[in-house]
Amino acid sequence: MSTMNLTLLTDFYELTMMQGYFKNKANEKVIFDAFYRTNPSNGGYAIAAGLEQVIDYIRNLTFSAEDIDYLRSVGSFDEDFLDYLSTFRFSGDIYAIPEGSVVFPREPLIKVVAPIMEAQLVETAILTIINHQSLIATKASRVCYAAKGNGIMEFGLRRAQGPDAGIYGARAAMIGGCIGTSNVLAGQLFDVPVKGTHAHSWIMSFPDEYTAFKKYAEMYPNACTLLVDTYDTIKSGVPNAIRVFTEMREAGIPLKNYGIRLDSGDLAYMSKKARKMLDAAGFTDAVISASSDLDEYLIDSLKTQGAQITSWGVGTNMITSKDCPAFGGVYKLAAIQAEDGTFIPKIKLSENTEKITNPGNKTVYRIYEKDSGKIKADLIALVDDKFDPAQDLKIFDPIETWKKTTLKGGTYVMREMMTQIFKEGRCVYESPKVMDIRAYCQEELNTLWDEARRLINPHEVYVDLSNRLYEIKSQLLEQMSQS
Amino acid sequence: MSTMNLTLLTDFYELTMMQGYFKNKANEKVIFDAFYRTNPSNGGYAIAAGLEQVIDYIRNLTFSAEDIDYLRSVGSFDEDFLDYLSTFRFSGDIYAIPEGSVVFPREPLIKVVAPIMEAQLVETAILTIINHQSLIATKASRVCYAAKGNGIMEFGLRRAQGPDAGIYGARAAMIGGCIGTSNVLAGQLFDVPVKGTHAHSWIMSFPDEYTAFKKYAEMYPNACTLLVDTYDTIKSGVPNAIRVFTEMREAGIPLKNYGIRLDSGDLAYMSKKARKMLDAAGFTDAVISASSDLDEYLIDSLKTQGAQITSWGVGTNMITSKDCPAFGGVYKLAAIQAEDGTFIPKIKLSENTEKITNPGNKTVYRIYEKDSGKIKADLIALVDDKFDPAQDLKIFDPIETWKKTTLKGGTYVMREMMTQIFKEGRCVYESPKVMDIRAYCQEELNTLWDEARRLINPHEVYVDLSNRLYEIKSQLLEQMSQS
Repeated sequence: MSTMNLTLLTDFYELTMMQGYFKNKANEKVIFDAFYRTNPSNGGYAIAAGLEQVIDYIRNLTFSAEDIDYLRSVGSFDEDFLDYLSTFRFSGDIYAIPEGSVVFPREPLIKVVAPIMEAQLVETAILTIINHQSLIATKASRVCYAAKGNGIMEFGLRRAQGPDAGIYGARAAMIGGCIGTSNVLAGQLFDVPVKGTHAHSWIMSFPDEYTAFKKYAEMYPNACTLLVDTYDTIKSGVPNAIRVFTEMREAGIPLKNYGIRLDSGDLAYMSKKARKMLDAAGFTDAVISASSDLDEYLIDSLKTQGAQITSWGVGTNMITSKDCPAFGGVYKLAAIQAEDGTFIPKIKLSENTEKITNPGNKTVYRIYEKDSGKIKADLIALVDDKFDPAQDLKIFDPIETWKKTTLKGGTYVMREMMTQIFKEGRCVYESPKVMDIRAYCQEELNTLWDEARRLINPHEVYVDLSNRLYEIKSQLLEQMSQS
Repeated sequence: MSTMNLTLLTDFYELTMMQGYFKNKANEKVIFDAFYRTNPSNGGYAIAAGLEQVIDYIRNLTFSAEDIDYLRSVGSFDEDFLDYLSTFRFSGDIYAIPEGSVVFPREPLIKVVAPIMEAQLVETAILTIINHQSLIATKASRVCYAAKGNGIMEFGLRRAQGPDAGIYGARAAMIGGCIGTSNVLAGQLFDVPVKGTHAHSWIMSFPDEYTAFKKYAEMYPNACTLLVDTYDTIKSGVPNAIRVFTEMREAGIPLKNYGIRLDSGDLAYMSKKARKMLDAAGFTDAVISASSDLDEYLIDSLKTQGAQITSWGVGTNMITSKDCPAFGGVYKLAAIQAEDGTFIPKIKLSENTEKITNPGNKTVYRIYEKDSGKIKADLIALVDDKFDPAQDLKIFDPIETWKKTTLKGGTYVMREMMTQIFKEGRCVYESPKVMDIRAYCQEELNTLWDEARRLINPHEVYVDLSNRLYEIKSQLLEQMSQS
């Protein structure tokens, strides 16, 4: 983990607002929700990721003496406020949907219940972490879906947007379903499989391709994927690989996890041609892997074309989520505590209906069809809403609230998605290991109908509002439009 | 700076290849070039950035005992190789084009001359760092160009691809021309201006918009930009801001750096309307700033529409370089040292002519038109090429090598772009401060013809090959095609 103090990883306005709250309403407690509005890549869902790093960040939140000196030097802050910061610790509660969960637009992924100064400060870093990892986990799940059970290797470090983007991007890609990463540091930090063989430079550093292959195969007979496109894939690369495999076989050295990698050219054509050549030489178990600007759409297309590739290395387009490089998560005020301890719901208006927030102290329920175990809908509810799955349930569309549906009692199952992470500033949650989050994510993805997973024009899973939340929202909108 | 040990921030195959070199050719010295092939965002140039972080990375390259244990646990490495790693230090030479320089496709940005194991190891991290920062610096320079002298604030931290992407992205955005960042940690680390005022949550946390504005203005009369779109920009936000400004004026409190921020809606329309309202109330010096999914194209369009905005906050689209989120820099073997100490040029073929590398031990010269000081072309040359600007100079297009141009002696000036950074493992270069790099970058951008800066279909600046380099490349291609 980075040992850099990330306390100042925040927008300057969080601090100017904090000082304003400090002077006007230091003891006010509030609720903020982190949520997103649109699924990345026009998909049907997202994968929540990054919670473990949010926990690390919150735990380590302290302003060092250097930080205080720096803030003093900026010239906007008074000494009483800097004094307050010098002993700052997060003292609030945090709830979240666990990492690896399938999530949908507008439902709170993280809920912060804390004094307003604390809740405001943590906005930026929470969003940076969650936006990034959820984006890449979602993208990876799409790439894996396209590969229909073939393994996807995360190969993107060199094109990631800086070291953290490579490190935590690899973590997120593993959560989303990759079988390994080329990123050694991610392997060390998160205990996930690292893999890789050699580059063009290996081939070029030897007098000829055959010698380079031979040297490599002798060293790594148990993980011998030869890159065949340095000079000419079909005329030189594949024949030289076959010659080396043959010599290894004749020398009685068993090859395991061996094969070739295509990194340029027409992958459909080349892979079919190479498959025939390998098979003809008796290497029917040699794996053909491919890399070269792959993404879910290209893999899907290659599958349709009958490409003979069963292992995929995906770099740039996954580690940057190239077609959609930002997740768009936001963090909005949902309620302010009154003097009697109750929370007063707050709403933000917008000329864009999609941007109107859901007020109040909320949680998220997932509703499954009892027979299939598949997701029927999600329900954003107030924390003190009560439900009985034996009864009929009426749910409302959160934007077009005149759309209502009734679920028959006994035909559905409900599960609360949010869990408590911090209680009065103490962490009360233990993050699972990344490979366990990955396994949970696979289960989560299996609760989606295939129609909601497809890459283009997926079925939209509805996220509805509970009856009481719907009423509170309507009342607030009514009040606002009259004022 | 991150204090995390980044030695393992590398692709696994760098280590498997290293072990191969260790066993086959431990003492071979090589040259690798880092370069890119296509300008980001279909632009006419790029801005080199990230060198300071590359230097930090190289300086701190050491495998800790933990790292060695981890690599042992992977099961691919022998003890003699792990022993070698345990005392590893970078011992080579590095040359680079300084940060903030305007650069063009195919010219080496960084050249590593080192034993093959060392040169191979550093590939991934060099590319990660340079690719990221050069991408964002380039994007920022485009956004600043569109704003025609108005200040651009970097506001993207919450949408950056992880903490480093926010921190080093802000650094790169400053180099590219931004006047400040919202990212407090970047401000602290790089001594660059941080700015910001308040969010919607500030407004929502008070009983009404007027009170929220008033409290803010009283606290920050010297940096008072009021966000006017929480409820209704024209009916509520702007009138409340004017009311507060008027009360401040009547109370004799001078306002400085004050104004409003628009964050949604039709920015052209809203800004014109708001400008009239502010002017009518006598606040002609109130600044109208805007944010809301801006990029260079949208700013350019708003300028064309006569929008009354003179200050811009740019987030998501700049910090992720949304239309082009990867820079595409590569790192290729260019030469191997023979036993007599000379370097034997190496070339990588490809069916794609663009992907054929330039062989040999090279440097980059920039050729300026003497009268205007503008860039005429760049010249990739061998390090021992000699030039005399009093003589005519014949240059060649690197891809379509039949394209030749002659520059008349005395009409041009030449400058070598690469400088030595490491000598035998010791850093011999001091990185300038970020604000000084920014100033240098402004000078660099002024050496481009306006036609090469324009956002769409820019003029292409030619990067040519020296006569001798052209001949070596031709010979190698000839040899390859015969083999």
